[in-house]
Amino acid sequence: MAISSTPPTDTTAFSFTLQATDARTGARAGVAHTPHGDVPTPIYMPVGTQATVKTLTPDELTAAGASIILANTYHLSLRPGADRVARFGGLHRFMGWNGPILTDSGGFQVFSLGHLRKVDEDGVTFRSHVDGSPQRFTPERVIQLEEELGADIIMPLDECLPYGVDERVAAVALDRTQRWVERCRAAQTRPDQALFGIAQGGMYPALRRRATTMLAELDLPGYAIGGLSIGESKAEMHAMLEEVTPLLPAHKPRYLMGVGAPEDLFEGVARGVDMFDVVLPTRLARNGALFTMDGRLNIRNSRFADVEDPIMPDCACYTCARFSLGYLHHLFRVEELLGYRLATLHNVTFMLTLAGTIRRAVLDGSFVDLYERFLAGYRAPNATVREEQRRRWLEAQARKAASV
Amino acid sequence: MAISSTPPTDTTAFSFTLQATDARTGARAGVAHTPHGDVPTPIYMPVGTQATVKTLTPDELTAAGASIILANTYHLSLRPGADRVARFGGLHRFMGWNGPILTDSGGFQVFSLGHLRKVDEDGVTFRSHVDGSPQRFTPERVIQLEEELGADIIMPLDECLPYGVDERVAAVALDRTQRWVERCRAAQTRPDQALFGIAQGGMYPALRRRATTMLAELDLPGYAIGGLSIGESKAEMHAMLEEVTPLLPAHKPRYLMGVGAPEDLFEGVARGVDMFDVVLPTRLARNGALFTMDGRLNIRNSRFADVEDPIMPDCACYTCARFSLGYLHHLFRVEELLGYRLATLHNVTFMLTLAGTIRRAVLDGSFVDLYERFLAGYRAPNATVREEQRRRWLEAQARKAASV
Repeated sequence: MAISSTPPTDTTAFSFTLQATDARTGARAGVAHTPHGDVPTPIYMPVGTQATVKTLTPDELTAAGASIILANTYHLSLRPGADRVARFGGLHRFMGWNGPILTDSGGFQVFSLGHLRKVDEDGVTFRSHVDGSPQRFTPERVIQLEEELGADIIMPLDECLPYGVDERVAAVALDRTQRWVERCRAAQTRPDQALFGIAQGGMYPALRRRATTMLAELDLPGYAIGGLSIGESKAEMHAMLEEVTPLLPAHKPRYLMGVGAPEDLFEGVARGVDMFDVVLPTRLARNGALFTMDGRLNIRNSRFADVEDPIMPDCACYTCARFSLGYLHHLFRVEELLGYRLATLHNVTFMLTLAGTIRRAVLDGSFVDLYERFLAGYRAPNATVREEQRRRWLEAQARKAASV
Repeated sequence: MAISSTPPTDTTAFSFTLQATDARTGARAGVAHTPHGDVPTPIYMPVGTQATVKTLTPDELTAAGASIILANTYHLSLRPGADRVARFGGLHRFMGWNGPILTDSGGFQVFSLGHLRKVDEDGVTFRSHVDGSPQRFTPERVIQLEEELGADIIMPLDECLPYGVDERVAAVALDRTQRWVERCRAAQTRPDQALFGIAQGGMYPALRRRATTMLAELDLPGYAIGGLSIGESKAEMHAMLEEVTPLLPAHKPRYLMGVGAPEDLFEGVARGVDMFDVVLPTRLARNGALFTMDGRLNIRNSRFADVEDPIMPDCACYTCARFSLGYLHHLFRVEELLGYRLATLHNVTFMLTLAGTIRRAVLDGSFVDLYERFLAGYRAPNATVREEQRRRWLEAQARKAASV
């Protein structure tokens, strides 16, 4: 497949300004300029899979400090349909969010469908998790869908492999992913959307380097790192990041896909990552797990029943300004929807505030100090807890897929 | 049981100013003054059973025009416990709502428990629907709980009978309810709470008149009409209202309990009712039924999938200002919590706006015109649909109770 010699992306529509680089780590601060506004980095991007960041309004996202949100091409192509969103004038108008949007291609979701999907050189055939209907994604089809959705940053179709695949299998998938990104770029017709590349390569340093080098040669407006946080240890994830980011051009943003717990923000930024997305803060919130600078707390725990303090006295969110831990405990205990809202608002505000604090520290040269202070106070869930959470989630997904 | 000769209610804490009476109907406009602010009547009171009007924040309720909300003593005494709410400084502080609150005694809920409750002269023994634990409500205990909750208007324990009971059974219950309200008044220790009486009497005009006359003699700060909308026809309900309101003192507010569909507001106001509460607008919203001046629409209907218009172009709510029917349809189709929020906000705003419109019409003498215009445009669900909805709901309640 030939590479288009004149990329259709209008370089005036999207650009990245690198503002500072930390002297002791890979940490960077910058601004990504998009047609719908600027995104200061490092940034956490709240996930609005189905054209809504679960439980929140666009105005609440703005108040929480969100500058860019995600949506998902796989989910939106099934419901309500990308063509329908286009008739509404695109995703921004459809969901009432006027800031920047990034759409994931849905590759991760499609490849998570297991036996329900079949990959070939041209694309991937799968069954909808909603109604079992046959579906087909090719690189060109995904770009067409993303152009209909109209996000500011769009992701190419990539082949996502489970943790632990053989290096030869990973290499085949990686080369196909590379051909697919070139086809995605050739298929682009809208000059206002920035197509990022996605560096895959499993847990194989050589493959990660090969993917990164090939992508860098395409001179794309931004680069993502995919296929991490899929079951590997934190040490493995960090090792892969350390292979990739040094090979990426400094003046382009780097986006670590599907990763973004509070501790991950620090680890990723230290290794040169600018953008993060993960459903964890919103999903945990609905399960009653609330972020604090000391770690997570479980609001369902009866020790909060009589506590008049807010989640965090110095948090700027509406939840902390107005409600006690005791009231939130009550809402969760009686399963009131307001509880899920207030918890989500807090966790999203926490992530965005943390990203802003990290950014300011990078700019004023105090990133390492901040990092050390944070680590000293924050009890991250240990690997066993994380793995158990992940296993249960994957089982639930498998059950869902099997029931189609 | 002796009646306290000096009622503990501080008459300066609660009062009612009658501002206008319609020349052609029983419609009235007034203002109820409470320790937490004024309530212009006629008014619809959103229901916050468990110390939250489902899905909404206190600020959203204020923006929607709510001047008073309900909470439920039965539910709150079970979770989180009235004593716990008292330790938080009362219901206003606990839930972050600084406007007036009315607490229902929970009599209706207790008597809805069927075989799980047993009534005697002194009170009623029942099992919690939450955990099956044995509970006991007496008039004095209910007042104690309501004093701990600290609402501005409190309701006495009353015996609520199902539709269709024998007149002799209804008469026995009514006399007991009368003895109970006198005991409630004697048990009051807080001078800042207004205890309303509740006129029961089934579908028997003579009993309704007897209940009303006995209550009026107590010179209570306000009067409620209970035991309606429990399965009778609208005609029967209207006939009962017409027995009761003429016997109530004009300078006290009248509250029709558990009734308040848009068409009911007009019918009740025309018969001299000032205050309404019903869970219908919030419950319907979560089921996707949205109020318009033409009647209800079902947002799940596929005919809305491509509609760019809001629910009602001239509605002042955030939902109508910002979102299309197509987007709301999508949110309901994919079962996103934001959909339930936005629908609730609209329905509550609709009810409050309608109550405000009715109030202005009473004040300027155009109530009958408004009533006729409304009826000409509004398609109320017919009796069959209503009865079916009610049957399904009662079945669901029975299943819930049986599972204790």
